[in-house]
Amino acid sequence: MDEENLRIDAAVRSLADATQKIISLKKAKADSKEISAAKKAEKKTKKEVEALLKEQKAIREELEDLMKRRYFVVPSFEIYGGVAGLFDFGPPGSALKDQFLELWRRHFVIFEDMLEITSVCVTPHRVLETSGHVAKFADFMVKDVKEGNCFRADKLLENHIDALIESGAVSKEKRAELLTIKANADAYEAKELGEMLQKLGIKAPGTGNALTEPFPFNLMFGTQIGPSGHAPGFLRPETAQSIFVNFKRLLEYNRDRIPFAAAQIGLAFRNEISPRAGLLRVREFLQAEIEHFVNPKDKSHKRFSAIQDVKAYFLPRENQVGEGKCIQMSFGEAVKQNIIDNETLGYFLARTQLFLLRCGIKPLKLRFRQHLSNEMAHYACDCWDAEIYLRGYKWVEVAGHADRSAYDLRVHSKASKVDLMAREILPTPKIVNVVEAAPNMKLLGKAFKGDSRFVKGYLMNLAEADVLKLEQSFKSGPAKIEVNGKTLELLPEHVNIKKYEKKVSTQSFIPSVIEPSFGVGRIIYSILDHAMERKGKGKEKRTILSIPAVIAPIKAGIFTVTSKEGLQEIASRVRLELVEEGLAVQHDISTTSIGRKYAKADEVGIPFCIVIDDDSKKDQSVTIRDRDTWKQIRVKITDMVEIIRNLCRQKTTFIELAEKYGEFKA
Amino acid sequence: MDEENLRIDAAVRSLADATQKIISLKKAKADSKEISAAKKAEKKTKKEVEALLKEQKAIREELEDLMKRRYFVVPSFEIYGGVAGLFDFGPPGSALKDQFLELWRRHFVIFEDMLEITSVCVTPHRVLETSGHVAKFADFMVKDVKEGNCFRADKLLENHIDALIESGAVSKEKRAELLTIKANADAYEAKELGEMLQKLGIKAPGTGNALTEPFPFNLMFGTQIGPSGHAPGFLRPETAQSIFVNFKRLLEYNRDRIPFAAAQIGLAFRNEISPRAGLLRVREFLQAEIEHFVNPKDKSHKRFSAIQDVKAYFLPRENQVGEGKCIQMSFGEAVKQNIIDNETLGYFLARTQLFLLRCGIKPLKLRFRQHLSNEMAHYACDCWDAEIYLRGYKWVEVAGHADRSAYDLRVHSKASKVDLMAREILPTPKIVNVVEAAPNMKLLGKAFKGDSRFVKGYLMNLAEADVLKLEQSFKSGPAKIEVNGKTLELLPEHVNIKKYEKKVSTQSFIPSVIEPSFGVGRIIYSILDHAMERKGKGKEKRTILSIPAVIAPIKAGIFTVTSKEGLQEIASRVRLELVEEGLAVQHDISTTSIGRKYAKADEVGIPFCIVIDDDSKKDQSVTIRDRDTWKQIRVKITDMVEIIRNLCRQKTTFIELAEKYGEFKA
Repeated sequence: MDEENLRIDAAVRSLADATQKIISLKKAKADSKEISAAKKAEKKTKKEVEALLKEQKAIREELEDLMKRRYFVVPSFEIYGGVAGLFDFGPPGSALKDQFLELWRRHFVIFEDMLEITSVCVTPHRVLETSGHVAKFADFMVKDVKEGNCFRADKLLENHIDALIESGAVSKEKRAELLTIKANADAYEAKELGEMLQKLGIKAPGTGNALTEPFPFNLMFGTQIGPSGHAPGFLRPETAQSIFVNFKRLLEYNRDRIPFAAAQIGLAFRNEISPRAGLLRVREFLQAEIEHFVNPKDKSHKRFSAIQDVKAYFLPRENQVGEGKCIQMSFGEAVKQNIIDNETLGYFLARTQLFLLRCGIKPLKLRFRQHLSNEMAHYACDCWDAEIYLRGYKWVEVAGHADRSAYDLRVHSKASKVDLMAREILPTPKIVNVVEAAPNMKLLGKAFKGDSRFVKGYLMNLAEADVLKLEQSFKSGPAKIEVNGKTLELLPEHVNIKKYEKKVSTQSFIPSVIEPSFGVGRIIYSILDHAMERKGKGKEKRTILSIPAVIAPIKAGIFTVTSKEGLQEIASRVRLELVEEGLAVQHDISTTSIGRKYAKADEVGIPFCIVIDDDSKKDQSVTIRDRDTWKQIRVKITDMVEIIRNLCRQKTTFIELAEKYGEFKA
Repeated sequence: MDEENLRIDAAVRSLADATQKIISLKKAKADSKEISAAKKAEKKTKKEVEALLKEQKAIREELEDLMKRRYFVVPSFEIYGGVAGLFDFGPPGSALKDQFLELWRRHFVIFEDMLEITSVCVTPHRVLETSGHVAKFADFMVKDVKEGNCFRADKLLENHIDALIESGAVSKEKRAELLTIKANADAYEAKELGEMLQKLGIKAPGTGNALTEPFPFNLMFGTQIGPSGHAPGFLRPETAQSIFVNFKRLLEYNRDRIPFAAAQIGLAFRNEISPRAGLLRVREFLQAEIEHFVNPKDKSHKRFSAIQDVKAYFLPRENQVGEGKCIQMSFGEAVKQNIIDNETLGYFLARTQLFLLRCGIKPLKLRFRQHLSNEMAHYACDCWDAEIYLRGYKWVEVAGHADRSAYDLRVHSKASKVDLMAREILPTPKIVNVVEAAPNMKLLGKAFKGDSRFVKGYLMNLAEADVLKLEQSFKSGPAKIEVNGKTLELLPEHVNIKKYEKKVSTQSFIPSVIEPSFGVGRIIYSILDHAMERKGKGKEKRTILSIPAVIAPIKAGIFTVTSKEGLQEIASRVRLELVEEGLAVQHDISTTSIGRKYAKADEVGIPFCIVIDDDSKKDQSVTIRDRDTWKQIRVKITDMVEIIRNLCRQKTTFIELAEKYGEFKA
C-alpha cells in the first residue's frame, strides 16, 4: 500500500519507541550523553508526529473550507445557528450526489438487473421491534454529572486512546493494550465501557467533570403515525428492513427464481448522541443498499469468473491484532483460501472496488477490512468493510458487505406470519405431509364483513407450524388473531384444517442475504478528499478538484474570450446544445479573464471548459480545455456535444482526443 | 376541452334538471301522462349517471389493480397489514419515478440553470414556528363520539355533497349552493365547518354515530433531535422552507445577481388524519419544488417571449362560480389581460404544461385553475394549480404555482436576525444613513471564548432596525441574545454602534418568490391513468401502458424467437450494449411465445422489444418492435443502441424510423 497512508502510524510508533528507549536507558542508568542523545531523537520524532498531525488537520480544514465556501455542503439551518449532524448539499454538492447515484444505479442496478424499490421512511413500531432495532439499536451514552451534556461513551474512549498514543507517552506494550481496547470500544457492553472509562480516568470534555455510568440510548427518531396517538413509529434507521418486508413481492416479481438482488437508494435516520466529524457522522443520510438473496447452500456467483483475477488489498480479521498489515491478493485467491467466505460476497467486493475506482478513489488508498468476531451481529457469517484512506482523517469505512444469513427474513416471517420462503426444483420429487388452513368464506363473510378478505389472506399465508398452533388453540375455544389492525375472534368452523400427503418437486428454504451497503455522504466526502489537489506555490497556488467527469456536478464551463459582438450568441447556442443533452453547464458571462475563469472552474471541479473566440465566428469551432491535463483541442461546434458526452461517459479520454485532434495552442 | 372530461358533470346536471321538472310538473298539477314521461326521462338519466360513475370506478380499480399486480406501487409494510397513507414503489414504479425525476431535472434545473439543493427532512421546531407551520399547518378533525375514529371534517363535507349531487335529488338552486359550500370546505374555520356538518346532518361514516365538533390537528410528524429531550423537531411538511433558510448562501453562490431560481427534489411528510384515495393523498411523498426569487417590482421574465404564443386551458377565479367553464387562450394574452398576475408566473405555467405533455399527459385533460381568494395564504398574490383530468377520479391538482410574495424570507429574516435582502444597482447613486453594530472582538473573545465567533456573526448580520433595538435595550443594561443554541448577555462595551452617511449605488429589497411545486406521486399516478389503454375485446382484450419512452421504467425487452444455439449469446451481447449505455432492459429468457412476451411488455409499458432470430446469426441484425404502433423495423446490431437512445431521448419517432428503414414484416 501507499506509504502515505501509514506515515502517521509509523511516526507514532517511532515516537513510542524513542520514549521507551529513554525509559530503559534511565532504568539501566546509562550514560547521560546517551540519554540526552535519545532525548534529542525523541524530540525530533515528536516534531515529526506533530507535523504530520498538523498536515492532516490542515488538509481536513482546507477541504472543509472549500466544501463550505463553494457550497458543496453547509450546515443545515445555518441562519438559525445550525443543528449538529444535519447538513445541506448546495448546488455543486447536490449535483455531485445525483451524478454519483446515477452512476451507482448504472453500475449496480442496471448492469446486474437488480430490482430497485423505493419504500418509505416512516416505519411502524412493530416492524422495527421484529428486526431487533427497538431493543438493540442503541449507543451507550454518558452525561456530564454537573452540566448534563451527553457524550457517546465509546467515542470518548477511542478519542482518549488516540490522544494518549499520539502523545507518544505510552510503552509498546501499553500501546498494544490500548489499541485492543480501542478496537473493541464499540463492541463493549455498558459495564465494560464504564470500567474502561474509569480505568483510564476519562472525564467530561470541556468541563473535566465526572461522568455518569454508561446507559443505552436508542438511536431511532420516534414519532406518531396518524391522529390516534396509539400508533408509534420511527424513522427507519436503515433502508434494508423495507427490502426484507417487500421480499414476498420481489420474489414473485422475479417469477420465483432465486438468486436475485433487490436494491434501494433512500434516506435513513440515526439520532446520534453527539455527532462530530462533519459529513462522516450525521443524523440523516442517504444509503444505497443491495440485498442479494441466495440459497444458503449455494453462494456461488455466475459472474465470479469475470472478477476472480482482480486484485485488492485485504485486512483480514487475524491481521488486525497489533499493527494491522494489509495483504494484496486476487478475489479468486481470497475466496479459495477461505479468507472471504463465499463467491457472492467476493463478487460484490470486487464490484464495489471497481465502482469506487470509477468515482476517482485512489487504488492504493482503498482496502477491505474484515469485521472482528465481536463486531458482527450474532447472526452474520462474514462482514467486510470497504475503507478509504482520507488524508484528513485516516481510514474511514464507506461501505459494508455483510452476509446476514437468513436472520431478517426469518424474524419477519415469524412476526408477520407470512411465508417468506423461496423454492427450488428438486433433482427428484419427494412425498411430503401438507398442513393447510382453508378459509370457509361463507361463514367468514358473515362474521367479519369487510375484514373477511384480510382474514382470508391471513389464513392462506399461515406457515405450517402456525396452522398447527391454530388447530391446538381451537381446542380451548375461539382463537384471537390480529388482522388489519384489529383483534378478531376466529371460530373453528371458520377454518377447514387440511392434512394430506403431496408429491413435491420443489424444496423450500429461507434465503440467505448478502448485503452491500453504501454510505453516500461518506463516499462523496472521500471523492472530494481524493480529488483535491494543489498545484503551484505562493501566489500561484491553485486548488484543483479532479472529480471524474462521469460524476462531476457541472460538465462544462462556457466562456467567451471577449465581449465582442456575436460571441455570446455562439456561447448561448453551445449552452443550449449541451443542456438539451442533459449536460449541466456553467455559462460564465462575467468579464473576468479566461485565466481566472479556468482557475475557478478547476477549483469547483468542472472537467472541461469550452472557449469561444473570434475564430469561432469564422469557422464554427471552439476550444475545449481539460482540467486535469490543462491540454486543449480545437473542434467543430457540431462535434462538440458528442465529444463532451463521450468524455463524461468514460468512452474516451482527453489524451486520446489530443492525439486525434492534435494539441491546440491558442 | 375534451367532452369526456365533462360527461359526468353534464349527466349529473341533466339528472337534476329531470328531477326538478317532475317537481314543477307536480306542483303545476300537470297531466299524469306528462308526469310519467318526465319520470321515465329521469330514470333514463339516472341510469346514465350510474353507468358513468360505474365506468369511473371500473377504470380506477383496473388501474390500481394493474399498479399493484405489476408491482408499480404497493402498500408499505404489506405483510404486516399495511399502514394507511404509506406506499412503496416496486421495481417498475421506482424506475418510472427516477426517470421522471431525471426528466424534471433536465427540463427545469439544467435547462433553466437553476440552483438545485438537497436539504434535510428533520427540522428544528424554531424554523417551522417561524414559517407558521406550528401554529397553522392543521386540518380540522372530527371524531365518532362512540368509537373514537378520526375523520377530516372538510372531506366528510365534500364527500357528502358529492353523493347528494350525484343522487340527482337536489334542485338547481340547492345544487349551486352545495357546490359553493364544497368549494369553500377547506377554507372554513372550525366553527363554520361544524355548522355545515350539522346543517347537512352528517354522521360518522360506517357507524352513523354523532360527531364531535371540529378541532384542529397539526399535520406535522413530531420528533426529538438528539438525546437531551429538549430539542423538539418535525419532519418537514414541504421542501420549500429549506430553500428559504438557504437563501443567503444561494444568493451569494449566484454572485448576488437576481432573479434566480433554486430547486429541490425531496421528501415531505404530512400526518394525514384519514388518508384514502391511494397515491393521491399520502403521508410521505416526494416534492419537486422551485423557488424563483425576483425583484417584487419587476416580475418580467427574459424568456417569456418564447412561450407567449403557447395556448392552454384556464379556469380563472371568476369562472369557478357555478358550473365552471374553461377558457382557452395564449399565455401572452392571459398575462396581458391580467388573468395571470405576471410574466414569471405565466412562464412557469407554460413550462409546466410542456413538461407534463412530455410525460404523456393528454393536452385536452390538462387545465390551470386559479385559487379562490379564500383558498390562498393571506400573503400570496396569485396561485394557479395545474389540474389533470383522471378517468378514475375527475380533476386532480398535481402542481401548484404560487406567487408567495416576500413573506417567507421576511419572517425568517426577522426570526433569525440574518439579513435576507438582495441588492440591485441603482440608475444613479444616492446618500443613505447607515447603522451598524461593529463587534469588539477583544472583549467578545474574553467574555464568550469559543462562542465569540457566533456572537460576531450575529452582530454582523443584524438588520438596521435590530441594531437600533439593541442600542435601545443597552440603555437598561445588558442585552440577551440567542446564539449557537445559548442565551448570552451582551454588554454595551462589546459593541460599537456606528451611524454614518454613505453614498450607495445599490438598493436593497427582500425578493418575492414564485413557487412552482410538483407532487411527484400524483403526477406519476396521472401518467399511468393517461397511459393505460385497452385494445381488443373479450379474450383478445389487451392492456397497453403507453408511458413515453423518455420516462419508461424499462426501455427495451430482449427476446429470442427460439432457444436455438447462438441466439442467447447474441441476446446477451445486445443486453450488455444497452445496459452499458445506462438503458434498463428486460432480458426475458423464458420459453413463452413472442406474442405473449409482447403482450406482457405492452402491459408493463416497455416501449421497444428487440427480437433475435435465426437471421440475426447470419447478418447481425435484429427486429425492433414498437409498443404504440406495433410496427417493426429491422436494423444492424451496431446501430441498435443509438436508435434506442434517440427514441428514448425524443430525438426521433418510430414512425420516422419506419419510413427510413422500411416497415419490417416477419
